[in-house]
Amino acid sequence: MMRDLDYFFKARSVAVIGASTRPGKVGHEILRSLVEGEYKGRVYPVNPRAEEILGVKAYPSVLDIPDTVDLAVIVTPSKVAPRVVEECGRKGVKAIVIVSGGFKEVGREGAEIERRVVEIARSYGMRVIGPNCIGIFDSRTRLDTFFQSRERMVRPPPGPIAFLTQSGTFGCTLLEWAAEDGIGISKFVSYGNRSDVDEADLIEYLGEDPETKVIAIYTESVSDGRKLLKAARNVLPKKPIVILKAGRTEEGSRAALSHTGWLAGSYKVFSAAMRQVGVIEASDMEELYGISKALSMQPSACGPNVAMVTNGAGPCVMAADEISITPLKLAEYSEKTYEGLKRELPPYAQIGNPVDLTGSATSTDYEVALRHLGRDPNVDIIMPFFVFQDTPLDEGIIRVVSDAKRYGKPIVAVAAGGPYTRRQSRRLEREGIPVFQSPRLAVRAALALYLYGSRFICRGKKVNNN
Amino acid sequence: MMRDLDYFFKARSVAVIGASTRPGKVGHEILRSLVEGEYKGRVYPVNPRAEEILGVKAYPSVLDIPDTVDLAVIVTPSKVAPRVVEECGRKGVKAIVIVSGGFKEVGREGAEIERRVVEIARSYGMRVIGPNCIGIFDSRTRLDTFFQSRERMVRPPPGPIAFLTQSGTFGCTLLEWAAEDGIGISKFVSYGNRSDVDEADLIEYLGEDPETKVIAIYTESVSDGRKLLKAARNVLPKKPIVILKAGRTEEGSRAALSHTGWLAGSYKVFSAAMRQVGVIEASDMEELYGISKALSMQPSACGPNVAMVTNGAGPCVMAADEISITPLKLAEYSEKTYEGLKRELPPYAQIGNPVDLTGSATSTDYEVALRHLGRDPNVDIIMPFFVFQDTPLDEGIIRVVSDAKRYGKPIVAVAAGGPYTRRQSRRLEREGIPVFQSPRLAVRAALALYLYGSRFICRGKKVNNN
Repeated sequence: MMRDLDYFFKARSVAVIGASTRPGKVGHEILRSLVEGEYKGRVYPVNPRAEEILGVKAYPSVLDIPDTVDLAVIVTPSKVAPRVVEECGRKGVKAIVIVSGGFKEVGREGAEIERRVVEIARSYGMRVIGPNCIGIFDSRTRLDTFFQSRERMVRPPPGPIAFLTQSGTFGCTLLEWAAEDGIGISKFVSYGNRSDVDEADLIEYLGEDPETKVIAIYTESVSDGRKLLKAARNVLPKKPIVILKAGRTEEGSRAALSHTGWLAGSYKVFSAAMRQVGVIEASDMEELYGISKALSMQPSACGPNVAMVTNGAGPCVMAADEISITPLKLAEYSEKTYEGLKRELPPYAQIGNPVDLTGSATSTDYEVALRHLGRDPNVDIIMPFFVFQDTPLDEGIIRVVSDAKRYGKPIVAVAAGGPYTRRQSRRLEREGIPVFQSPRLAVRAALALYLYGSRFICRGKKVNNN
Repeated sequence: MMRDLDYFFKARSVAVIGASTRPGKVGHEILRSLVEGEYKGRVYPVNPRAEEILGVKAYPSVLDIPDTVDLAVIVTPSKVAPRVVEECGRKGVKAIVIVSGGFKEVGREGAEIERRVVEIARSYGMRVIGPNCIGIFDSRTRLDTFFQSRERMVRPPPGPIAFLTQSGTFGCTLLEWAAEDGIGISKFVSYGNRSDVDEADLIEYLGEDPETKVIAIYTESVSDGRKLLKAARNVLPKKPIVILKAGRTEEGSRAALSHTGWLAGSYKVFSAAMRQVGVIEASDMEELYGISKALSMQPSACGPNVAMVTNGAGPCVMAADEISITPLKLAEYSEKTYEGLKRELPPYAQIGNPVDLTGSATSTDYEVALRHLGRDPNVDIIMPFFVFQDTPLDEGIIRVVSDAKRYGKPIVAVAAGGPYTRRQSRRLEREGIPVFQSPRLAVRAALALYLYGSRFICRGKKVNNN
């Protein structure tokens, strides 16, 4: 059986109302995404002044389509939206995405149109995403409602992260990051003015979605805090939720208001509530994506003690700074670990935290270090740093790091540079080891693994916090 | 006439002492960088057990080389360094880079060797960079002392940024970023343990270097604060200095000590001193590089008022948040600007700060907005945001933004995404417009333009701070 939100992602037929004959126009590009992409469902342009668009027969109204319509994508001006939505209702449409702007975000008149549209939709039992958004993407059915052409925006492969975003712009960014890294996305929703379907509905829905391992959210405002917290509480034991809240200040809040018609509200209250239920907060898009990536790839951490190993210690100094302002700690190794490292590593290695293998390090040196750190009960999280540019470091390193997964501890890696470094980083990520350019980001990701783990996963298990 | 530090960058002949026959070894790869790269000077491997390395005749000692030697790169174990440096002195070598570790960073014994090495070098009038570093790179002579092969680390083209770094790792990162962006580097020094040549020496030297427009520094510790401040004070009126200080906390400081043998000292004191003389601080590598990029490409700002224009406002909400915690302000446009924008922009545009042209925006809309903002005396800095993925935005946008340079105000752009967005961003950067993925970074760059401008450039000129 289809649940109501299923009709957005698994629609068997889609009408594009306001489809345009002119390339570059929003109503043309959305149709093109559906017709020329990998979506296998039936697609119907609606335009009273066109016979056909992109080789597909067009209809004057949704009512004229000789087929059931699961999903309607509306691109018409806001003024005609109530009439169009009414027709959708009469047609038996199940779900509506309104891409057009000109609603609540432009002021009172638009807000009134938006209110009427939702009222009409609800009277027919239809759900609405938007308006003022880029809509949805499902990585399995390949259904998307984007006016961003494939030449300009790469669609990601199926993957473990679901992304909900009030901003379509950040939506585009994260979709492309997940595509380029090969990490992938399960489901994506840009909800703009959030007139009907909200984060809470989507969190509950994604909580049941077997393809989604982590839920990442960008939001500027909250419509119904209590509902959001309830949904989060229900879903968090099953999968982590990471949230980035913008509009934290008066200035940001004002910008948010004209963006999606919502006042941002007190950030302090929001942040405290998130912490209380166990939602992980991110402070920018890089963090939102990076934390989600780590949570989707690595096991949780049951203690705060981080061990660093490196062939170039500058980034470890920054990581140590960052660790010291979080609940994480720099691990203090057992005697046995110290002795083992001393015995097996070459004399140039500096044995501390970090274990500094220096620029002369080989993959064998890393193997020794990872083995001792992996087996040390005082170590909860392993953070290997790499200067892949250093020529003594041989190609065996990928296997060595991948093999260290056997110790069952989360591994979060750091490496930054040009094409070769990126290639090596991708190879590590294909082995399930997340790699960060920035030590700060890696520490935040490690922290998230610890926060989620200690709260929801490790209860009863030993939690190192000595 | 050559100044003493010139011998590092413009050496006509280089000896690699400790050159190795074995590929992958540090002493082999450095020789390879010099022999197989674009460096045009004479190169001499020194190795008592080899006849030739990489097709170049080797000598048992630097004293056996039948030529003058400007620069010696030392890769031998630390224990033999005093003897090797003594021989360099007798040979008449002018400058020494010690790449090897095993000195101050490993403890008292190493520190004593380091002290003796410097004593010997000074007695012969030789300057020393290192030990425990990756040395130097000059983008004109193409001389480098890197053990990072060209297959693994791209060398940047000549460019406006000089980079001084205590960490070789961060050195590799920034060199490759500057190479990939096409921004380029003028001169580069990784100084590791900083036994002789320090940041102050290099700042004074780069102050006179016509190829260097901005000096970027990563440091974990300061050897002589007074000397550093004096050098900064001398050079700042000529060019900006941006600094990233790691080892800010006790934990970071401890990591710094085993990295380069220096205690990091109080960060608070450091930061206050930097602010007082007008050095701009960065909080991570992305910022250090981003701020330097903006300072090298754009004119300074003579006031704090930022105007944003966009075709997708999410990132503007985050930028507004960030602006509000800095001395920057959101510009309040003149009546004339409001009226002009209202008259000329399409009705869907939201006229405020940001000017939100929405996803339907074309380059013509941007032209209108940039013209009015560019001419408004209440606007000091223009921050255009782009969703290049949005298909209505035509390719004319590059020219439109480039033309906006005519208004004489700094322009700092924001765009994030995949291949197409990167291509468009590079095109903008070739026109001299820096583009940032992150709104936070763009705001920090704008702030640096204002801080440097208001302190060193705009005195006497009008400074907007109403």
